[in-house]
Amino acid sequence: MQPLDDAALDRLFREARTFNHYLDTPVETSALHAIWDLMKFGPTSANQLPARLVWCTSQEAKDRLAACASDSNAAKIRKAPVAVVIGMDVNFHEHLPDLYPHVNAKSWFDGNAELREASAFRNSSLQAGYFILAARALGLDTGPMSGFDAGQVDLAFFADQPGVRTNLISTLGYGDRSTLHPRNPRPDFDRFNRIA
Amino acid sequence: MQPLDDAALDRLFREARTFNHYLDTPVETSALHAIWDLMKFGPTSANQLPARLVWCTSQEAKDRLAACASDSNAAKIRKAPVAVVIGMDVNFHEHLPDLYPHVNAKSWFDGNAELREASAFRNSSLQAGYFILAARALGLDTGPMSGFDAGQVDLAFFADQPGVRTNLISTLGYGDRSTLHPRNPRPDFDRFNRIA
Repeated sequence: MQPLDDAALDRLFREARTFNHYLDTPVETSALHAIWDLMKFGPTSANQLPARLVWCTSQEAKDRLAACASDSNAAKIRKAPVAVVIGMDVNFHEHLPDLYPHVNAKSWFDGNAELREASAFRNSSLQAGYFILAARALGLDTGPMSGFDAGQVDLAFFADQPGVRTNLISTLGYGDRSTLHPRNPRPDFDRFNRIA
Repeated sequence: MQPLDDAALDRLFREARTFNHYLDTPVETSALHAIWDLMKFGPTSANQLPARLVWCTSQEAKDRLAACASDSNAAKIRKAPVAVVIGMDVNFHEHLPDLYPHVNAKSWFDGNAELREASAFRNSSLQAGYFILAARALGLDTGPMSGFDAGQVDLAFFADQPGVRTNLISTLGYGDRSTLHPRNPRPDFDRFNRIA
C-alpha cells in the first residue's frame, strides 16, 4: 500500500498547526456531522466510544464555556467559529451491549469504577486525537486546550449527565495562517523512541 | 480548503480496521522513523510530547512483551511484524525548557505530580491516536490493545526510566484483510453529540 501523497501528509501532520485565530468563514452544521462521521471509526478499546461532544456554535454557549476557562483561553473560545467540549462518560459500559455485541463486555466494567475511569480517559483522549485529524482531513483546523476548570464545565454542560466529565476543549474553524507563530521544536526519533 | 479525497478518508477512517493478523510483508526500520516523523507533529498541551515508544522488532522483544499480556493478546503480539509499547513519561516537564522554550512551562508542573500524571496520560493517549493515523497514512495497519499488566511491561521495558509508565500497546504491520470480522457498529451523531 502506497503512502498518502505529500499534500495529504502535510495537511494532516507536517504543515498542520494549532490555531488561536480563525477566518470569518462560517462552519456549517454539516461539517460537524462530517467530522463525527469520520472520527467515530477510530478504534477504541472494546468499541467503548466514551467521548461525549458538545459543539458550541451559539455565542451564548461559547460565552458560557469561556466563563470556565483561563483568561487567555476564554478570549479564544469567545471568538472562535465553534468551540467543542469533549467529555468522557464513565458509564460508557452501559452502551456496550449494542456497541460490542458479541461478548458481555459490560460485565468487565460493572462495579469497577477505577477501570472505567482510566478507560474513559484513555479512549476519549484517543478520540480527541481522531477529532483533530478528522477536522484536518476535512480542511478545518482546531485549537485544543486543557487550561480550564473541568468541574465548572461539567456543571455548565453536563449537569444532566452525572457520569460525564470534561476531558478537553477545542476551538474549530478555518485557521488564519497569517496569525501563526513559528512552530515549537519536534524531537528526532532517537530522543523518545527505542527499537528493541 | 477542500477535504482530502475519498480514497484518503477511507484509508484513514472509513475503511481502516484494527488488525489481529498481518501479511508476511516486513516492516522496515525506515517505516518506524516515518511514523514518528508524522506523529511528532500532532499537538500536545504545551508541546509536552510525553509518549515514549519502544518498537519491538526482534522476536526476543515481542516474546518479552507477550509474557506481560493476556493470552489472546500475547498470541497477537508474538506473531505481529512489530509490537509497539507506548509509554508516558510523568517527568515530561524536564524537557519543556527546549520543547516549549518561550515561557517557563516546567514551573507549571514542578511539584505537582497529580497534574503531571493526568497531563501525561491525556497527551500520550492523544499521541497514540496520532500514531494510529500516521501508520494508516503511510499504508500500514495497527492493532491497539489495553489488555496487559502495565506494571509488568514497565519492569520489562522501562526499568531504567522510573518516570515512564506503559499506557497502551499496539501491533503494527500490513494487515491481512482476509481475516477481518464485520466491524462493530458506530453510532449516529445524535447519540453522543449535542449542538449548543
